[in-house]
Formats: sequence, structure tokens, C-alpha cells
Amino acid sequence: MKKYLFTPGPVPVPEEILLEMARPIIHHRTADFEKIFAEVRDGLKYVFQTKEEVFVLASSGTGAMEGAVANTLSSGDKALVVDGGKFGERWTKICKAFGVEVEEIKVEWGEAVDPNLIKDALKKDPSIRAVLMQSSETSTGVMHPTKEIAAITRERDDVILIVDGITAVGVFPLPFDELRIDVLVAGSQKAFMLPPGLAFASMSGKAWKFRERSDLPKFYFDFKRYLKDAKDNTTPWTPPVALVIGLAAVLKNYKNEGLEKIHKRHATLAQGTREAIKAIGLELYAKDSPSTALTAAVSPPGIGAGKIISGLRERFGMTVAGGQDQAKGKIFRISHMGFIDRSDIIAVISAIECVLRDLGHKFDFGAGTKKASEILGAE
Amino acid sequence: MKKYLFTPGPVPVPEEILLEMARPIIHHRTADFEKIFAEVRDGLKYVFQTKEEVFVLASSGTGAMEGAVANTLSSGDKALVVDGGKFGERWTKICKAFGVEVEEIKVEWGEAVDPNLIKDALKKDPSIRAVLMQSSETSTGVMHPTKEIAAITRERDDVILIVDGITAVGVFPLPFDELRIDVLVAGSQKAFMLPPGLAFASMSGKAWKFRERSDLPKFYFDFKRYLKDAKDNTTPWTPPVALVIGLAAVLKNYKNEGLEKIHKRHATLAQGTREAIKAIGLELYAKDSPSTALTAAVSPPGIGAGKIISGLRERFGMTVAGGQDQAKGKIFRISHMGFIDRSDIIAVISAIECVLRDLGHKFDFGAGTKKASEILGAE
Repeated sequence: MKKYLFTPGPVPVPEEILLEMARPIIHHRTADFEKIFAEVRDGLKYVFQTKEEVFVLASSGTGAMEGAVANTLSSGDKALVVDGGKFGERWTKICKAFGVEVEEIKVEWGEAVDPNLIKDALKKDPSIRAVLMQSSETSTGVMHPTKEIAAITRERDDVILIVDGITAVGVFPLPFDELRIDVLVAGSQKAFMLPPGLAFASMSGKAWKFRERSDLPKFYFDFKRYLKDAKDNTTPWTPPVALVIGLAAVLKNYKNEGLEKIHKRHATLAQGTREAIKAIGLELYAKDSPSTALTAAVSPPGIGAGKIISGLRERFGMTVAGGQDQAKGKIFRISHMGFIDRSDIIAVISAIECVLRDLGHKFDFGAGTKKASEILGAE
Repeated sequence: MKKYLFTPGPVPVPEEILLEMARPIIHHRTADFEKIFAEVRDGLKYVFQTKEEVFVLASSGTGAMEGAVANTLSSGDKALVVDGGKFGERWTKICKAFGVEVEEIKVEWGEAVDPNLIKDALKKDPSIRAVLMQSSETSTGVMHPTKEIAAITRERDDVILIVDGITAVGVFPLPFDELRIDVLVAGSQKAFMLPPGLAFASMSGKAWKFRERSDLPKFYFDFKRYLKDAKDNTTPWTPPVALVIGLAAVLKNYKNEGLEKIHKRHATLAQGTREAIKAIGLELYAKDSPSTALTAAVSPPGIGAGKIISGLRERFGMTVAGGQDQAKGKIFRISHMGFIDRSDIIAVISAIECVLRDLGHKFDFGAGTKKASEILGAE
């Protein structure tokens, strides 16, 4: 059976990139590798829309999240965490593990945070040193208003904005320099359409000032070491050479396609998926601010999401993601990040229609596929 | 030009493993992946010679070293570090970054530590809580006496032995349970003949007791999370799926070959390389305890190692490693770990002979190749 991967990370990897990474391994302290790494640095700055260095870490995105905290904050600092899903919770856990005090803005799963809550919290408590958030909360498929929140934090010299852009960078516009985000992290297995194993992070000048006074222990994720070695086109520790080579190839394609077009592609696929899901008679889990990275659909009453997920897997070879924690069994999530095109979305919508019909859900069979086809148009 | 990689990590990756990793990516929360991960757990226990869990980390070996410290020690604890090279120094740097006090046993580069120094230091200072060492110090090509040191630490309930086995595990016998090592770390790009990007770590029961009182901050490298999730055949954070799939294939081959045979293969290649280097009239950098993982050769008087290295690269397509820090320009290092066979060693020795002759080194041309051929024999 042909296999289709619609999970919000890992995402499918283009065949030519898989083969690029299957080339014989080279050593990382050679002119050949340094040339590739120079291209990678340049390409990452292009995607992050920044003049700052973007660090290449051998870790999952969570490692870069830990680095973001450990490089900027100090023990006893207070952090304001936007907690509207599993990854928001992760910010809290990381801060607490490192002795950073946390004030949480609890957001109902499926909802986006109101930027005024952040403005108020910062006004009320001048001891807050950082706002931590997800630009796209992968567990709920919600997009938080990063631009609006950045407009608040950039007015304050004593507060930094730390953004998890793991399912955002390369998906929708998140211009690091323009918005004045202070730390932004991303991961290879999302819009970068690579296997998992690399994470990325960038820091603003303001964040580097925080770095100077930061007393949290750091070694493997010490961004200062990465900054120093990046100038020599290398990393402080042995990099995942094959993934870096794949990344260079992806970034070359990205420059050719152009960032604006990449963002537009994702936006169109997201819109087509959302409207199709609604045409099938399902609700979106993200009430008012759905993410461009993935669509979380609520399972119809009386039908567990697990049945939809297993139907897609067993009958159509398609892997979609379920819900996590409180959303488990209630939702299923379809990614449209990276190496996903119009035909993939038409195919998964059609398969969802078949599975739902056979599970007894009443709807206008074919309406979802038709809607997706209308919106996604043709090249 | 055909390319040959003789660096002590990364090492060449077998073609069939490269292709295995080039297969379409799968999601890590699926039955398919869990089945593979179960095989990996089993295979890693086999290579580590342990009944304990072996954790699979998305990081370089340095990440696992940080985890070894952060999971067992506490702020203000005193650690005894065997510092006989660049990686010994790394233990000190990690400890200091985490607020662990360090007492160093400085060992001349190229020499192995005398276990009596450790016995004496522990006797003299009962406040020492851990001994940290390299089983094989990659920067000098020296093997430290792990077995003898483990015999000292296992007599003490209040001292653990933390071993960097990055160029040791899978190379020579280092039975975790039998020796009663407490924390052992390894990396994918060494004997495991994979690209860099994975690190491994295991902890003894004694180390877990240390874990209970450890107050150092840890999140990404929190081994307790890895232990919990390993039972469900998964990892706490998204694993580098492609590398894990490659690892499963390597471990399957390892079980077929058998650990004893793998160790013997490495020992023979090491002996052949060493004797050939001596036959060419070069000194070994490791005076009395050369590592089975790599051979560090001292450049002849008047000939900089850089010239040998560039000659091998430019004329023979061969990458060997230079010396680091104080050994820079003085030595070159040839790895015989992982996917390296008799023919590779014959080829590199022959190339070294050609380069050295043309650089004016006087020796019995052909003696090195002959010696290697004698020792390495035939299958």
C-alpha cells in the first residue's frame, strides 16, 4: 500500500533530498563541509528573515526551546508563559526545571491568546523578564498573534519575547528582525521538510544582553559557542552532517521558490483543507485563529477520532495525528507543512469522506473534495 | 576521485545503511516505529553489555556527556576528572558550567592515567562524588584503564564512575554491568557506523540513586523521561527517525556478526595500523596504551602533519584527522572504527608511504604496507 504522511512533524521528505542525504558521509572539519555550512547559514537567515546568526543544533525542537530559556534567563527570573496547549505547557516545564518562576496565561485549548492579557500582565507585574509563546501551537492547530505580542514586548528593554516557531518558520510570515522577536526556534522536520534531528535558533541584540547576565547552566546548548563557531562555518559539537547536507539542498530550493510564494502555498493549502473539513460537516478545533501549518478537526459526535485515524491508516495508508492529552480521541490533525501539495490534500480529504461515511457520519458525500478542489485550483 | 574517510568520527556509513535511511520517513508515534525502537533497545543493550536501559538521544556525544553530569551530580559536588586530552577537558568544562567542583588528574597528552592516582585521590578526599574519564581519548588515541578504575569506584557506594565511551563502545570490550560502570555514553558516528546525530547513555542502579538527590537543572537530557518513555518503545522528544531506522539495521548486523568478533576485528585492524606506522619509522603518539579505535601517529621531525594530511586528501582522496590544540601540526589520526576493513587500512598505509617519501622522510618504502598485510592476513 502506498504510504502518505500527514502528521505535523515529521513530514514527508522529497525523494531528491533523501538521496542527497544518502551520499557518502564527509567530515565536518573540511573545506567541503564549511562551504555547505556557509550556504546553510545564509539560507536560514533568509527563511528567518534576519541578519542575525541562526544556530544549527543537533537536537529536537525541545532542545532549542531549552536553549532559548537557558541562554537568556536567570534563576529566580519571572517568565510569562502563554499556555494554550501541550507546547505551551512545555515552556512552563522547561522554565521550572531551570529555576525560572512562571506566571501562566491559561488559554482554552483551541483558542488564541488575547494580546491585551499580555499587556495587562506586564503592566501589573514589572518583574516579568520574558514572554514565552508558540507562534503556532501544534497540539491545537491554533495560531497565536505573534505580531501583536511582539509590538508589546519591543516597547520594553527589560522584557524579551521568546517564540516557539517550530511549526511556524517557513510556513507563514514571521519576520524576526521586523517584528523584533528576541529568540525564535524552529525544527528540521516541519516546513524544512527534512527528517527530525536538527533544530534552529536565533537571538536578537536585546536577547544577547540578557545572555550576558544569565546565570542558568548551559553547555551543549550554549548559543555563545554556536555564534563563535558559526563565523568559521562550523558548529561547536559534531553536527548531523547528512541532515545539514539535506538542509543546504532544501534551502537552495527555498531561495528559488521565494519566501513569499512558500508562505502563499501554505496559506492556500491550509484554507483548502479547512473549508473542505467544514464542508464535510466537521468543526475546526481552532475556533477563530487556525494555524497555517496544520488543521485540527473535531471528530463528529459519537465517532471517536481513533476510528477515523485507524481507518485512514488501514484503508488508505495515510497517517494523520490524533489529539494529545485532553484532546485525545476528540480531534485528528492534518499537516499541510513542507512537502505536501494540492493532490495530497485532495487525496486525504477524499479518504476522510470515505471513512466518515462508513462510520455513519451524515454529510453531503463529495462536498469536501469538491470544496478543496475549488479552492486549491490548479497551477 | 574516490573518497576515503579515516576520521575518528564521522566514519564511513555502509551503502545499504545509507539507503535504509533514505526510505520514506515514518511517524514516531506509530506501531511501525515502536517495533523498530524495540529492536534498537534490545540491540543497544547487547552492545553496551547491560540489562539496563540504553537511552537514545538526539544530540552529539557532548549532549550525552552533559546529560551524564546533569542527571547524577548536584551543585557543589566534587568531581574527579581524568584530563589527558581534549575530551577530558570537556568533562571539566561541563562540570564547571553546571556548578560542579572539579579536581583534575592531569595526564600528559599521549599517556594513560595510572589508576593508583585515582585510588589515592579518592582516599585523600572523601568528598569526591564521581570519577569522570574517557575510556578512549579520541584527541590522543590513548586508551585509559577503565576496568582497573571501575574496580576502584565499585567499592564505594558514594562514588560513581562516569565513562565517555564515545570511541570505545562497540570497539573494544567495555561490559557495563560486569565492570559496574555507572554512566556510559556513546555516539552514532563511531563504531555504530552511522552519520552523527544520535547519542546513547546508560545508568546503573547506583547512578539512579544519585539521580534522586541530583539538583542540577535538566529537561531535554533528563534521563528519567527517557527511561519512562523507553518502556513504551518511544522517546520523550521527536527522535531522528531516519537515524534510528539506520541504527536498527546496524544493530541487526552487529548481532549477526557477534560482539566478540566485532571487538576482535577492531583489535586486529588497530594492531595492523600501529605496526605499519612503526615500520614506516613513525612514532605512535600514544606511548604505552594506544586505543583500538584510532591510531595517532607523530609526524617525523621537520615535516608538519598538515602536509601529510593535505597530501593524503589531494593525491589520494583520503581524509584523516589532524591533532587538536597542543597536538595540532604534530600528529595525524587514522580511525579504524566501524565500516573500515583490511583493504582500507592497506590503502591508507600505502598512501601515507607515498606522501612521506615525497616529503623527504627516509624509511624502507613498502615496509608499512607489508607489515599491515602480514598482520591483517586474509579472511
